[in-house]
Amino acid sequence: MREVAVLGVAMTKFGVSEKTNLEMFAEAGLEAITKSNVEPKDIQALFFGNCLGGFEEGQLHMAPFAHSELGLPTSAPAVRFECACATATVAIRQAALLVAGGIYDLVLAGGTERATIMGTPLATRTFAMASHAQHESTAGITFPGVFAMAAHMYTAKYGVEFPELKKHTAEVAVKNHRHGALNPKAHFRKKIDVDTVLNSMMVADPLQLFDCCPFSDGAAAVVIAEVNRAKDLVDKPIYIAGMGQAACGGLYLQRDITRVRAREEAARQAYHQAGLTPSDIDVVELHDCFTIAEILAIEGLGFYEFGKGYDAATKGETTFGGKVVINPSGGLKAKGHPIGATGAAQVTEIVQQLRGECDERQVEGATVGLVDTLGGDLGTVCNIILRS
Amino acid sequence: MREVAVLGVAMTKFGVSEKTNLEMFAEAGLEAITKSNVEPKDIQALFFGNCLGGFEEGQLHMAPFAHSELGLPTSAPAVRFECACATATVAIRQAALLVAGGIYDLVLAGGTERATIMGTPLATRTFAMASHAQHESTAGITFPGVFAMAAHMYTAKYGVEFPELKKHTAEVAVKNHRHGALNPKAHFRKKIDVDTVLNSMMVADPLQLFDCCPFSDGAAAVVIAEVNRAKDLVDKPIYIAGMGQAACGGLYLQRDITRVRAREEAARQAYHQAGLTPSDIDVVELHDCFTIAEILAIEGLGFYEFGKGYDAATKGETTFGGKVVINPSGGLKAKGHPIGATGAAQVTEIVQQLRGECDERQVEGATVGLVDTLGGDLGTVCNIILRS
Repeated sequence: MREVAVLGVAMTKFGVSEKTNLEMFAEAGLEAITKSNVEPKDIQALFFGNCLGGFEEGQLHMAPFAHSELGLPTSAPAVRFECACATATVAIRQAALLVAGGIYDLVLAGGTERATIMGTPLATRTFAMASHAQHESTAGITFPGVFAMAAHMYTAKYGVEFPELKKHTAEVAVKNHRHGALNPKAHFRKKIDVDTVLNSMMVADPLQLFDCCPFSDGAAAVVIAEVNRAKDLVDKPIYIAGMGQAACGGLYLQRDITRVRAREEAARQAYHQAGLTPSDIDVVELHDCFTIAEILAIEGLGFYEFGKGYDAATKGETTFGGKVVINPSGGLKAKGHPIGATGAAQVTEIVQQLRGECDERQVEGATVGLVDTLGGDLGTVCNIILRS
Repeated sequence: MREVAVLGVAMTKFGVSEKTNLEMFAEAGLEAITKSNVEPKDIQALFFGNCLGGFEEGQLHMAPFAHSELGLPTSAPAVRFECACATATVAIRQAALLVAGGIYDLVLAGGTERATIMGTPLATRTFAMASHAQHESTAGITFPGVFAMAAHMYTAKYGVEFPELKKHTAEVAVKNHRHGALNPKAHFRKKIDVDTVLNSMMVADPLQLFDCCPFSDGAAAVVIAEVNRAKDLVDKPIYIAGMGQAACGGLYLQRDITRVRAREEAARQAYHQAGLTPSDIDVVELHDCFTIAEILAIEGLGFYEFGKGYDAATKGETTFGGKVVINPSGGLKAKGHPIGATGAAQVTEIVQQLRGECDERQVEGATVGLVDTLGGDLGTVCNIILRS
């Protein structure tokens, strides 16, 4: 296997956009290419992520259109990936694997989503198609419901009762909004407090509005190259130290929804490949689609024992100066969640952190970072460990 | 690069099915795994194709569900691909590249589609989302219209006038229905004659109903392995000699729609990698979504000069005993076209041809075959050359 590195990274401002999916991706993609000191003609393949384009814009088969917006050469294939929220992370991993395997030397990967065009209620129902249509959707499952059930199971399993757990989950939202306020690209840049969360609209008991990430518009893209090529092109290539991806079907196949089996396996693969352990990680962008999801993730990734991560945000252990900085970008919760772009934005943040380019939200001395993206109702997880 | 081979291949009966996308894929996938003399636990990754599942069944994020239907291990990632009609071919190529690059040793790839649930008029409008939403769909473009324009341009460019060209395109349909009648898995097993075509309903002038392939339900899957592993497992591994994939945006970017630039580049890559020329190819499964499309393809793949392929079927050069056998399975026209499965069914047919397993439709002495799949309105083409 060849060593692989990330060169230029870029993301659009996340939020509500008037631009199309393709326009947003072209903006991010061209910036990533330019920052890599190469030209579109140098890109050998496009690994493109989008989740709901058919519903947002009546647009399928988006990869070759993104390819032509960017001016890539005809010889460079364009491939679309869809793995629910993990879409772009999966596209980036596939790109990195093909560079590692010697198939390509220089590729572009990322994703785009224009989710706000549907409005939140319709987007919520539409995105529920990422659960199992036959066994789950027909039962009325939407994603807030899935993670509400996980919160209930967490209390039952670990004996942390709701008035208490809800204060701790609210602290996750408070932290991620505080981080997002420092990020010029974030969808929400407004600090909140625990009362903001606890007084917000009930969505799916116990999850209230401020426990939920938004649907956002946005795109992100990264250039990946074989490591010697990367060193020739940019000053600070960021190395892909380890990757993992695993699958375990839908919610209806899980015995314990406080444990995401796909994450445990994907993280095991990534740590093993990198030769690292959770204690080596300085900064993490992980899948906080709901506040409880961040708690499940910090446990599943090995930063806390199972059942012990619920008060990490309250204790200040997951913010700047803490044990491990979780979601310095603001996470899905505040930076926003343009589904098919999210994984590429997570990689973008970690790469910028490891280069020391994050200004007010810089994690001091960060040398190793981890990306974690969960797709669907626990069916897909993809992890990427990066190092400077 | 390691050498790569195809082991077990399987497809469901194509046509109208009561089964879900996942049930059809499980049927094909398990048969392909069984024929490879391995078990689901041995599969290291799933490369899964589906195009319209969100519209057919309200089902996105289908890959991990297919993964669990098949009983694959959690450690095996499941990735969904969508590249319009080329979806499954692209999934297979990606799988083969990762085996060639040493990332995996044994993987499953294929696709599924349940297109008839929408009915042809709605499926036609839905699938038109594979053209460019902003620049083309809004102009009323559907795929019959795209290929009708190509037929018009063909007459204008090469001086073959319509009454004559329509007889020759009708002969393509007659041939492919004759082939399909020999294929127990084909959607249509009824022979037709030229009058059947010329007396059928007008769809998009000059294309009549029998110039058009159907929407079908079906799934197909193939197991791919490193060549030494393949030789240990099956008697007749079929080698992947060369592959190509290219992209060139949408219809609105093409100067000459009788020439598919993505095909010319993809075929160039595949022939180059295989060290072969068109004259080496014995049998071809190519993208005859419309009768004129077969003519464009046999020219683009180098079997005929541009403007000279229109009467190949009439002369009997593209059927059994001819110069090169085109679509012995019946092609998209008669075997059927379950969009996300089509490429995997094409590979299945070529592999079975090269193994001499095709009974009445066997191409005698075939040792080299080619797969050609076109995605969208000329934006994606993927080619795979196989040899025994």
